[in-house]
Amino acid sequence: MKSVLLTACAVCLALHGSSQENLWWKTPVNSPEVNKDNTVTFRLKASNATSVEVVGDFLSKGEKVEMKKVSSDVWEYTTPKSLAPELYSYSFVIDGVKISDPSNVFLSRDVVTISNLFMIDGKESELYKVQNVAHGSLSKVWYHSDKLNADRRLTVYTPAGYETSKQKYPVLYLLHGMGGDEDSWSTLGRADQILDNLIAQGKAKPMIVVMTNGNADLQAAWGEASTGFVTPTIELPKTTDGSFEEAFPEVVTFIDKAYRTIAKKQSRAIAGLSMGGFHSMQISKEYPALFDYIGLFSASARFEGRQPSHIYDNCEAKIKVQFSQKPALYWIAIGKDDFLYAENQKLRKFLDDNKLPYTYVESEGGHIWKNWRNYLSQFVPLLFK
Amino acid sequence: MKSVLLTACAVCLALHGSSQENLWWKTPVNSPEVNKDNTVTFRLKASNATSVEVVGDFLSKGEKVEMKKVSSDVWEYTTPKSLAPELYSYSFVIDGVKISDPSNVFLSRDVVTISNLFMIDGKESELYKVQNVAHGSLSKVWYHSDKLNADRRLTVYTPAGYETSKQKYPVLYLLHGMGGDEDSWSTLGRADQILDNLIAQGKAKPMIVVMTNGNADLQAAWGEASTGFVTPTIELPKTTDGSFEEAFPEVVTFIDKAYRTIAKKQSRAIAGLSMGGFHSMQISKEYPALFDYIGLFSASARFEGRQPSHIYDNCEAKIKVQFSQKPALYWIAIGKDDFLYAENQKLRKFLDDNKLPYTYVESEGGHIWKNWRNYLSQFVPLLFK
Repeated sequence: MKSVLLTACAVCLALHGSSQENLWWKTPVNSPEVNKDNTVTFRLKASNATSVEVVGDFLSKGEKVEMKKVSSDVWEYTTPKSLAPELYSYSFVIDGVKISDPSNVFLSRDVVTISNLFMIDGKESELYKVQNVAHGSLSKVWYHSDKLNADRRLTVYTPAGYETSKQKYPVLYLLHGMGGDEDSWSTLGRADQILDNLIAQGKAKPMIVVMTNGNADLQAAWGEASTGFVTPTIELPKTTDGSFEEAFPEVVTFIDKAYRTIAKKQSRAIAGLSMGGFHSMQISKEYPALFDYIGLFSASARFEGRQPSHIYDNCEAKIKVQFSQKPALYWIAIGKDDFLYAENQKLRKFLDDNKLPYTYVESEGGHIWKNWRNYLSQFVPLLFK
Repeated sequence: MKSVLLTACAVCLALHGSSQENLWWKTPVNSPEVNKDNTVTFRLKASNATSVEVVGDFLSKGEKVEMKKVSSDVWEYTTPKSLAPELYSYSFVIDGVKISDPSNVFLSRDVVTISNLFMIDGKESELYKVQNVAHGSLSKVWYHSDKLNADRRLTVYTPAGYETSKQKYPVLYLLHGMGGDEDSWSTLGRADQILDNLIAQGKAKPMIVVMTNGNADLQAAWGEASTGFVTPTIELPKTTDGSFEEAFPEVVTFIDKAYRTIAKKQSRAIAGLSMGGFHSMQISKEYPALFDYIGLFSASARFEGRQPSHIYDNCEAKIKVQFSQKPALYWIAIGKDDFLYAENQKLRKFLDDNKLPYTYVESEGGHIWKNWRNYLSQFVPLLFK
């Protein structure tokens, strides 16, 4: 009697629960399987399909590889070589339709693209993995913006022990790129894993990380606001019109009130990727008393937005004022293949010409999350020294 | 120049970012479309498919409906009738393979089943929707269990204003069913929306809600622990062996230390669905000084677990002791079609025979999230009066 509770539950649910009618209790097939030699086998159970392919960021640009039918109903593909340690994403294409792997419940969203995830463990991915270390908390928190006339959602990382300590902490404000939202750095960027691991290794100071929504027209990530389940778009009216930047001090005020922060410039950093790098540059120069550490990751490094705003007026002069107050770190990172590479060199030329000191990191690759996770992992240990 | 930043970003990302190579910026087709009359149209772009079907909880048990090809590449199905206000889930079946709708980024996971979501607005679903009201925070928080020898993850809802108030709050401990985890009540159960809305309407007291992981062998939801991206299973060794129940006071101790709680019996409730109802019954009778409000939602209402444990010894006698201390509310809800219906009637008979007072709610339907969201919506307004 006792031993059948679990079996009975599963069977009865399948038989009786109308909502559970379409539930699976096991995946159709084992996929993806990371083999001992770090090759990866993908499988899809699809007896009637005529063609199945895999696409993903472990392949070359635009590459699709064909899966082979290895039994009456299972298609399979194994990578010819071991994959390097990294967090990877992929999808299947069945008879021309791109789908998620039905056997893999781990997914991420980037704008409207849903991808499956898998991890190759190793030195290069150890910071992205949930390790057996003390974990911080990750919270979805709402604040009110008077300037944007809206309640708005933040993702807040507090380091392990925050809830039961009385300590005050420095704060990193971490900004997403175009098409992103307050969820992006934790889901695609693995920010909470990177912080947990760097702090546990003694390589970073325990800190609070605040991830904002940089789309001034949105209250929250798609599906998380009262507008309901609206399909994401990057075509938003207020991304680089100065309004997000202008309203940013309200976020700092809220965080300093709601959390045990060290509320001074020496204990505040701001960094962002792509559009978030643009925002970080603009906000830090507009409010030079707020941030001592600035990180531009693959930044859209221009001095003007899409719409005119007083925020973008006299940008060069304001940056000189910012540097006259000697920020502790102005950190610029860009990939050699990034479409924003030239723009970043132009910013560097301006800084060099004016003898404004910064740190420059040039990586391989382009405008990709692998680089942004890596830049965050390099930047965070430099903060609050 | 200014006006092309967004377009340039999108185009250049597509051309240059290797990780972004497979990104979409728009969904293939508009799906699902909730029409003005609350019928719903589903669409899939699939030129080469030979058969496309829809399954979902808006259909009868086990029903699949065929989509029709309405153009050279788009399949379509519109429900013949308006759907009642509710949160619904569905999937497509393409040439026999069950897939998510590639045009809908809103998904939920139940064990290994990924489903797409859509909402029909109206009176019956208004509590499940993100409304334009003050929002509480939802946090993923880790505590240490000495008894289970592990760091373990909790989901904690704190009501709107918690961060900036000095107020103390009562606490509802809310437990998931078999196959679930600490994410289930917020993702499938819409607990944070229900609490936000009931509190905003003045129907519930502001309270903290703590959602535990009731699988004593797991530290956290699948993919959130150092075991990595492991496929979920319900075949776990320590679900109803007494160990979760025995260790439960550690959670209460942590929450009372980490949050501004009213740390007394009159301000504590415990409720759960299915296995979580079993846990709530066992924990509340084992520690009768802890909880004044008890909710059993479609509970596995038996007096013994799968494995023997001293927790399950003398269950009847311990329940009598619990009731001798006059809990403020003992609330039992079950659906007429639930496979646990008979078990709940047996529990009622025991309570009736012993003149132990409780509240009983019988609903339509079975062992489904629609009922559990509804039970939570009924239970929460009764607490901490």
